[in-house]
Amino acid sequence: MKEIKIFSPATVANVSCGFDVLGFCLDTVGDEMVIKKTVEKGVKITKIEGYDLPLETKKNVAGVAALALYNHANPDCGFDIEIYKKIKPGSGIGSSSASASGAVFALNELLGKPYNKTQLSNFAMKGEAVASGSEHADNIAPGIFGGFTLVKSNQPLKILELPTPSNLYATIIHPQIEVKTAEARSILPKNVPMQDAITQWSNVGSFVHALHTNDYSLLGESLQDVIVEPYRSKLIPYFSEVQKAALAKSALGSGISGSGPSVFSLSEGIETAKKVEKAIQEVYAKTGIEFYTFTSKINAEGIKIL
Amino acid sequence: MKEIKIFSPATVANVSCGFDVLGFCLDTVGDEMVIKKTVEKGVKITKIEGYDLPLETKKNVAGVAALALYNHANPDCGFDIEIYKKIKPGSGIGSSSASASGAVFALNELLGKPYNKTQLSNFAMKGEAVASGSEHADNIAPGIFGGFTLVKSNQPLKILELPTPSNLYATIIHPQIEVKTAEARSILPKNVPMQDAITQWSNVGSFVHALHTNDYSLLGESLQDVIVEPYRSKLIPYFSEVQKAALAKSALGSGISGSGPSVFSLSEGIETAKKVEKAIQEVYAKTGIEFYTFTSKINAEGIKIL
Repeated sequence: MKEIKIFSPATVANVSCGFDVLGFCLDTVGDEMVIKKTVEKGVKITKIEGYDLPLETKKNVAGVAALALYNHANPDCGFDIEIYKKIKPGSGIGSSSASASGAVFALNELLGKPYNKTQLSNFAMKGEAVASGSEHADNIAPGIFGGFTLVKSNQPLKILELPTPSNLYATIIHPQIEVKTAEARSILPKNVPMQDAITQWSNVGSFVHALHTNDYSLLGESLQDVIVEPYRSKLIPYFSEVQKAALAKSALGSGISGSGPSVFSLSEGIETAKKVEKAIQEVYAKTGIEFYTFTSKINAEGIKIL
Repeated sequence: MKEIKIFSPATVANVSCGFDVLGFCLDTVGDEMVIKKTVEKGVKITKIEGYDLPLETKKNVAGVAALALYNHANPDCGFDIEIYKKIKPGSGIGSSSASASGAVFALNELLGKPYNKTQLSNFAMKGEAVASGSEHADNIAPGIFGGFTLVKSNQPLKILELPTPSNLYATIIHPQIEVKTAEARSILPKNVPMQDAITQWSNVGSFVHALHTNDYSLLGESLQDVIVEPYRSKLIPYFSEVQKAALAKSALGSGISGSGPSVFSLSEGIETAKKVEKAIQEVYAKTGIEFYTFTSKINAEGIKIL
């Protein structure tokens, strides 16, 4: 194989109760990338369409991630990367992660799969660090593993693949405002009340149990965030109105996607998810803020070869 | 049925990562209780053997729990309760819970099972409050439901039954010193570092996942407590020596049982658990502190009719 075209999906990190550890993979929206083996050694970004991002390999998240793998594998060839960027940077649904994860996934395929998914995640995290300033796997993991993931530890990286209930759908709204990850991090307190922490780990435990038992109702009850949402929701205009509208249409739960500004809702069944999407659109249509929405099945597979 | 004899087992609350929410049920050690229907109405404690505890119904945890159910059911009879106390009060393996849970379980059986396990837990918590000053379900739940439990919420009470890996054994050491629950609570900080809280809920999530996937190794990796153990372990002499000895003999993990002073270890297989018990005995034999140890299968059933 000399060339590969892939779909690298958007992802939702944190998932209300699981700040910094939980994530899931979307299906409808993602970057497309074409990666070609070259005789000339090295990694080049030859094309970026969609958004204005640096072509210089060492300044591009896909480039840095690809280089991390490339330098480790030290192959007898090089790679040209074309990025057809569909996920808007800064949207809170893992835009930089998708580029980084897609690049390492593609290189691994073209090299005959020498690396496992955890190793790929480690390489991708090097790229993610270019965008966010630190190595995080909470968007990388669901993209590379698919479905729901739990980052058990970062050093060494250990990712758990959680089960994906088959009738679960996500609705995303992306208000077209900017929330910088660094800012979203800086407003969080360094210490949290013990009682809130207990509530949160009770929810994480019951969320994982709900995934294993296909208990949609418990999934909804577990989608509570008493730690981060009270701070970050202030950065997202009409957050509580969106959340209320989603729950009023029987969404299981609704919360901030990653560090925002996107807001996710989870629903049992596509019909409910579509009703939720419509209700959220109606909320935002009145605000004068530009936005887009989409509904997606949970993508149990992750990155796909096209 | 006019009379019932039951075994109400000891339990381990918190389970390292799951402070205030996780618990599991033991098998080897527990209180025995004989409860008789009487013509005369009311609830009486007619006998307590083993430890010096109040016979007055309203001052006895079993009495208060039984009264909570009795007053709700308002039956045309009364009950006499005999308690053969085997779990030493203040040992940290759910002594008061066992009495409270056993009483409501037995009354429910004698009344034809009008209440479900969650309702029984609610009644039992009234008794538990007499001993600890507040209503907690973290020892009640594993006794009444059996196996591993997660208290999803206290108001309203919601208890999740987690799977019990079949080859899992617990080793308990009870150093004969007193740790008051109130004191063990008061030394805990009101706020905890965000990073530690994240580590803790990652561990709770992976612990639940490990139970569902029978992953003993992951179970061990998840048995880490960065929140409570650093404070409470100071109240237990030679805690770290016990923990190290257990882990050196391949225990999956080791931590404080409830608020101490008992220390639990979990092992895969009874042979490992017995080696762990021996190693722990050797540590404590040198200290001059009285102690006893036991090894138990995880009791998936909970309270048993004898």
